Amino acid sequence: MSDLPPYWLRDNCPCADCRDQRNGQKLFQITDLPDDLAVAAQTELDGHLEVLWSDGHRSRYPLEWLGAEQEGDGRTEAEKRLWVAADFAGGLPEADWTAYLADPAERAAVLGAVRRSGFAVLRGVPAVERQVLAVAGTFGYVRVTNYGELFDVRVEPDPNNLAFTSVAIAPHSDNPYRDPVPTLQLLHCLENSATGGDSGLVDGFKAAAILREEAPEDFAVLTRTPVPFVFRDRSTELRADRPLIEVDALGRIREVRFNNRSIGTLRGDAAELEAFYAAYRRFAAITLRPQLRLEFRLDRGDCLIFDNVRLLHARTAFEQDGSRHLQGCYADLDSLASALAVLHRRAAALDAIGELFAGEGAGEYLGEAVTMAEHMLQAGALAQAAGAAPHLVAAALLHDVGHFQGALHGRDLMQGQDNRHSDTGADWLARWFGPEVTEPVRLHVAAKRYLCAVEPGYRERLSEASEYTLRVQGGPMDEAQAAAFAALPGAEDAVAVRRWDEQAKEADAATPGFGHFRPLLASLMR
Amino acid sequence: MSDLPPYWLRDNCPCADCRDQRNGQKLFQITDLPDDLAVAAQTELDGHLEVLWSDGHRSRYPLEWLGAEQEGDGRTEAEKRLWVAADFAGGLPEADWTAYLADPAERAAVLGAVRRSGFAVLRGVPAVERQVLAVAGTFGYVRVTNYGELFDVRVEPDPNNLAFTSVAIAPHSDNPYRDPVPTLQLLHCLENSATGGDSGLVDGFKAAAILREEAPEDFAVLTRTPVPFVFRDRSTELRADRPLIEVDALGRIREVRFNNRSIGTLRGDAAELEAFYAAYRRFAAITLRPQLRLEFRLDRGDCLIFDNVRLLHARTAFEQDGSRHLQGCYADLDSLASALAVLHRRAAALDAIGELFAGEGAGEYLGEAVTMAEHMLQAGALAQAAGAAPHLVAAALLHDVGHFQGALHGRDLMQGQDNRHSDTGADWLARWFGPEVTEPVRLHVAAKRYLCAVEPGYRERLSEASEYTLRVQGGPMDEAQAAAFAALPGAEDAVAVRRWDEQAKEADAATPGFGHFRPLLASLMR
Repeated sequence: MSDLPPYWLRDNCPCADCRDQRNGQKLFQITDLPDDLAVAAQTELDGHLEVLWSDGHRSRYPLEWLGAEQEGDGRTEAEKRLWVAADFAGGLPEADWTAYLADPAERAAVLGAVRRSGFAVLRGVPAVERQVLAVAGTFGYVRVTNYGELFDVRVEPDPNNLAFTSVAIAPHSDNPYRDPVPTLQLLHCLENSATGGDSGLVDGFKAAAILREEAPEDFAVLTRTPVPFVFRDRSTELRADRPLIEVDALGRIREVRFNNRSIGTLRGDAAELEAFYAAYRRFAAITLRPQLRLEFRLDRGDCLIFDNVRLLHARTAFEQDGSRHLQGCYADLDSLASALAVLHRRAAALDAIGELFAGEGAGEYLGEAVTMAEHMLQAGALAQAAGAAPHLVAAALLHDVGHFQGALHGRDLMQGQDNRHSDTGADWLARWFGPEVTEPVRLHVAAKRYLCAVEPGYRERLSEASEYTLRVQGGPMDEAQAAAFAALPGAEDAVAVRRWDEQAKEADAATPGFGHFRPLLASLMR
Repeated sequence: MSDLPPYWLRDNCPCADCRDQRNGQKLFQITDLPDDLAVAAQTELDGHLEVLWSDGHRSRYPLEWLGAEQEGDGRTEAEKRLWVAADFAGGLPEADWTAYLADPAERAAVLGAVRRSGFAVLRGVPAVERQVLAVAGTFGYVRVTNYGELFDVRVEPDPNNLAFTSVAIAPHSDNPYRDPVPTLQLLHCLENSATGGDSGLVDGFKAAAILREEAPEDFAVLTRTPVPFVFRDRSTELRADRPLIEVDALGRIREVRFNNRSIGTLRGDAAELEAFYAAYRRFAAITLRPQLRLEFRLDRGDCLIFDNVRLLHARTAFEQDGSRHLQGCYADLDSLASALAVLHRRAAALDAIGELFAGEGAGEYLGEAVTMAEHMLQAGALAQAAGAAPHLVAAALLHDVGHFQGALHGRDLMQGQDNRHSDTGADWLARWFGPEVTEPVRLHVAAKRYLCAVEPGYRERLSEASEYTLRVQGGPMDEAQAAAFAALPGAEDAVAVRRWDEQAKEADAATPGFGHFRPLLASLMR
């Protein structure tokens, strides 16, 4: 660890003085650090590197973090799955709209496909006007352009763009004359009864990689030549100078722009222009290779989502023997990636919760005839059988997770030391769930103390272990405490959870597994 | 001309088969051109290069166009005015909101300042909620982010961003963790009665240029190191790997991102990290130099517009002895540049129209006692004196411009050859004006033929020249023609213009100059 650059190390200090714990934003400026910053002392302890700095600050870094690999932002070829048409012989990345909305795993699969392969198709999207905006809203924000918030792709009497005619359109990017160019495009089919008008996609990264392989010098020319893309109509005059193939600082393909229609006049000396046009023509020819072109038909209700800085899209000509009407809009990859990361984060949280049920919870009895996992699953099942709202099913299912979090364990409670597991559990769950789930969990111990105070015979029905913990937790409430509890907004929900809690101690009761509840939990995460 | 690369030349063919005349988009693909394309013959004629191609196509290029210089897209340092604070000792680039709305020249000045200097301030913008969105709408489209369509910069109880506290904030870019990053930011002051909370701007391009001057190797390190910018909260997880200083393929500074708060963990070998942190610290120190920092105060009703991929913005800490409330939103430079280009295009059109009045129109009498310029100015002034709507004043003012356009001149008309100047004029004007202006112009000759048919005594009052041209133009309408004319939607307006036309032949009448009408014309352009 001795060769870690001090400013790098200090800039990454994870302590609460250096970093906002909620959003990871730093709370200091790099210029706040002294010019002679150095490590005064360091030691490894408990899987952490502990550092005392020359200015007196102390930092503590997980060794695992120190050794982590560089991850990328997912935007270069290094993190994409480059493809040719045959790679989708088994089918397109697609999902049903209803399943996409209902199931986070399905949603993650669709967004993941857009991120990795550059596209996905949603089927069964209601074929109504403006619905494409709702699709974009599931993962990001619409980017408005001179074509409007959305645009209609159909034959128009006085088109300002070839898209609005019935002719074939070769593979291209949209809006290359914008900077920033919209990085995502959505095309939602409202009607496609015309002969022809099939959609085509070409992986521009793959085409660029082929060019690099077959003609490295041409590839280099296209990466270093800013090309003027232009568009002009009565109320618009756009121009962006960007290379056809953009590589990052490490030389990796990051964006592809391709649109012969809107390339303006490139200036330069004759040799440069000659070299550019030779490279450009070669690249253009590659984009037309049949093996690169994935063809499919968008039917009514299909919505294609694709990466507009990677994939080139095309369509075949169509007859005017029927109607063809797509509605499209633009959006951006950054928000889509964010939505995907949040879905992954939530899936990881559900995995972590599931592990409580499969691991520690499956072995821990805490004085009852059932394991903690069985107990919580029974409570959830009882809530569900009672027709409880999803947030109450979740609260019942998760009410005891606090036994496995925090400084004190459920076993400490059974040894007479209150582990305040309702608070610990609620706090832990609050990372993912709202108060409608966490507050009944927080109050479920208080609810027992309340019920013992106000409901004759309730205390007598407690299990032996529950009677024991009741005393550790403070015994029944007095009258004032009970009145205060009853006035809390979540008291009623907490009492309901408590009743299922007490019932959920039947040995050998048949209960569904954690997987049964997972979609319900997923739908409550926010 | 012999060394012009053939594919370059052909790709730029301006003919109507190769290029959509309305939007300049090409109507062919580069791959449509044969592999052995060559110039078969070429000749220079009438200021044009005429080319016969080996595939039989013919092209015609203005020599002036062939010799034109490369223009850029305005986004690199080459087309910016780099600044230090003292450059604005004479005042900020600013305009009054009312003037900005009313006067295209004022609007162009503001947008031009944002483009060249990176910012401008609008004063007197109504201090009402959501008004900032209206400001953005004057030149482009709002970019929605996880902070919403707009965001409120004021002290918040549970801030997810330092912006929403009262602490000082060092110069930084917003949203560097987005890709595409919003390229423009607007901050509209609704209230600023707190002590402190002044705004600061630093020209990031200037800071980068200083770094390049003082430490070229550090500059190079920052341009070639993709830095992970990150932001994470409950519903967001954004990451973008981009260099702090981005140069274009020709090495020119194109974008600057700077935000210590959101720089995540950069990975690399120790030497790379060491080099990056040394360069980063040096650059950070430059951004803090007082001579670079322009400080000013935003007061109620001020709206700052600035380039978020160039300027770094900052604020001083403020006391909570008063209220400070800014509303902000993001937008993009491309649309701003487009709006500016359209304003310039319209200004150039007004110049061209003005030149008709100052040049040819001031010397041409066409058989009357007044020059054509005097005649048209008188017609416009008569319309205005009659309280006519602006579009009719414009039509009266411009009704005879067709004498100076097209194949046949006004002099041809006077020699007995109808130059169809009402059509030629209307078509020429249609580049900039809508039918409410062009159609009365188009019909003003027909209106004379109509009035002569239906209004007793009208023909007798015509000037000698007008009586002459009446005959060249077909004489009075017959009954059917007159009925058809009267039924046209623009007939009434055309008749009104015609009456001013006939009156506007007073030698030595005092009339305002073209400049008087320019704002009215500007307001009608679309």
